[in-house]
Amino acid sequence: MKCALVRRGGTVVHSERHPTDAARGPAAVVETILDVADALAGKARLDGLTPVALGVAVPGVVDEGRGVAVWSANVGFRDVPLRELAEARLGLPAALGHDVRAGGLAEARLGAGRGARHSLFVAIGTGIAAAHVVDGSAAAGAHGAAGEIGHILVRPGGPLCGCGRAGCLEAVSSASAVARRYAELTDPVATGPTVSAAQVAALAAAGDPPARQVWSEAVEALADGLATGQALFDVEAIVLGGGLAQAGTQLFDPLRAALHDRMTFHREPRLVAAALGDEAGCLGAALLALDTLEKR
Amino acid sequence: MKCALVRRGGTVVHSERHPTDAARGPAAVVETILDVADALAGKARLDGLTPVALGVAVPGVVDEGRGVAVWSANVGFRDVPLRELAEARLGLPAALGHDVRAGGLAEARLGAGRGARHSLFVAIGTGIAAAHVVDGSAAAGAHGAAGEIGHILVRPGGPLCGCGRAGCLEAVSSASAVARRYAELTDPVATGPTVSAAQVAALAAAGDPPARQVWSEAVEALADGLATGQALFDVEAIVLGGGLAQAGTQLFDPLRAALHDRMTFHREPRLVAAALGDEAGCLGAALLALDTLEKR
Repeated sequence: MKCALVRRGGTVVHSERHPTDAARGPAAVVETILDVADALAGKARLDGLTPVALGVAVPGVVDEGRGVAVWSANVGFRDVPLRELAEARLGLPAALGHDVRAGGLAEARLGAGRGARHSLFVAIGTGIAAAHVVDGSAAAGAHGAAGEIGHILVRPGGPLCGCGRAGCLEAVSSASAVARRYAELTDPVATGPTVSAAQVAALAAAGDPPARQVWSEAVEALADGLATGQALFDVEAIVLGGGLAQAGTQLFDPLRAALHDRMTFHREPRLVAAALGDEAGCLGAALLALDTLEKR
Repeated sequence: MKCALVRRGGTVVHSERHPTDAARGPAAVVETILDVADALAGKARLDGLTPVALGVAVPGVVDEGRGVAVWSANVGFRDVPLRELAEARLGLPAALGHDVRAGGLAEARLGAGRGARHSLFVAIGTGIAAAHVVDGSAAAGAHGAAGEIGHILVRPGGPLCGCGRAGCLEAVSSASAVARRYAELTDPVATGPTVSAAQVAALAAAGDPPARQVWSEAVEALADGLATGQALFDVEAIVLGGGLAQAGTQLFDPLRAALHDRMTFHREPRLVAAALGDEAGCLGAALLALDTLEKR
């Protein structure tokens, strides 16, 4: 859990991290969230600051309108009214957001998407998810499930995805897919990844043939997915974050070329690296909290 | 050109149609648009009505913010300031919209998407295009090119699309693609379609094997495209319009089943037929005109 005290305008005055330890179960995780938030508000007061609102961003399906964490595979949330719980505990207005949408919001307002009214933030790590941000607001969809770019079909009949379908973008281009595919190609008896996606990228750069193949397949599929996103959303900037984006030019150079090749009638978006690192979601949660105040 | 006098609230009090005759060139088409609009305003006044605003919806890339028809393959528009021209000619506030987005707007507010805050209108005819409508407003994108669902990749290495890429949804599931594919399968010497998409649908219903194959390929690819749309937009309702949707249960029954099969984590959207026929775009243009008044 990345946690911070954030001023209006987005300046971080204090940050801290805590283990989620999801194995304890969702109720314990909720208690930790509330304890940490309460302690942060206390610290702010001790430092002479006045906490005005709290923002929380969580993964999964999030109903931002009702402030409910509807569903999360990782943490086990099932219809947890986190906003209400946080308001009751802290006595402050609270906002609940989705981690990737909050991250996209922060990148659009304070990070790599600054200046673009229309941007698409794509986080590539164990999974792949996106946030479509227009005028500083991320689209949540009718049920809090918008932006699932990891689960668009890019390779019919391709590798099986964790969601149960074959050929999803996430099953080819996520960090875990890259690592898994490399193990399949190089070690017939391996039952899991033998090296990380970052190592595959480094091996590919060094000319290792199976690594080059895996990396190239991931980049091509990612370009197909981003081209689909651009056809539907028509953004000015695509901001790539998450672990895989750490590969830098190793990812961006071939991906930019592959995306360019796929642009026909589309206006080509800028393809840029996320600027806020793994604190984007935390900053976005703070922005959501401040937005809540403005709306009241 | 579908043209109408529309009351606040969406009631059509008069409608008429005029040939576009695009072969005359874009300047002549613009003149006809202005002449017809001016005559309609005159007719309204003669009938004791007071025209308050004008809405125009055109195909292609449309910059609604600036009121400019940026680009159109069919009509040949290149940066035509249609809104300004209409305001000058009629002396009324005007709005310029995109035909499919205007159609989606009308279906969402007055037609088959009524009651859904989040809907996706997909028009399937010679081409395939979509409008994502949230709270009665259709997303235009950064450059007026959002919603190009016809040009998302569904069949890598598949049939060549008019846009220059292979495997686009439009190249498999549009009415023209269905007709073309049937001709390819049944008449090796045909250089173009031998029957229409509607006839292929009827032949498929009658058990004709090549027609069944072509129809099934079109439906499966369409389900893949709609599932991608749902993963990204998360809507309550998908409204299908355009010529191919006239096939009724012949399209909707297998498509609904194929879409259902593809829903894993997604919330399944209602799949419904458009209700406003080919006047949806015209009605949407009127709604845009009324919206313009509200904003002033």
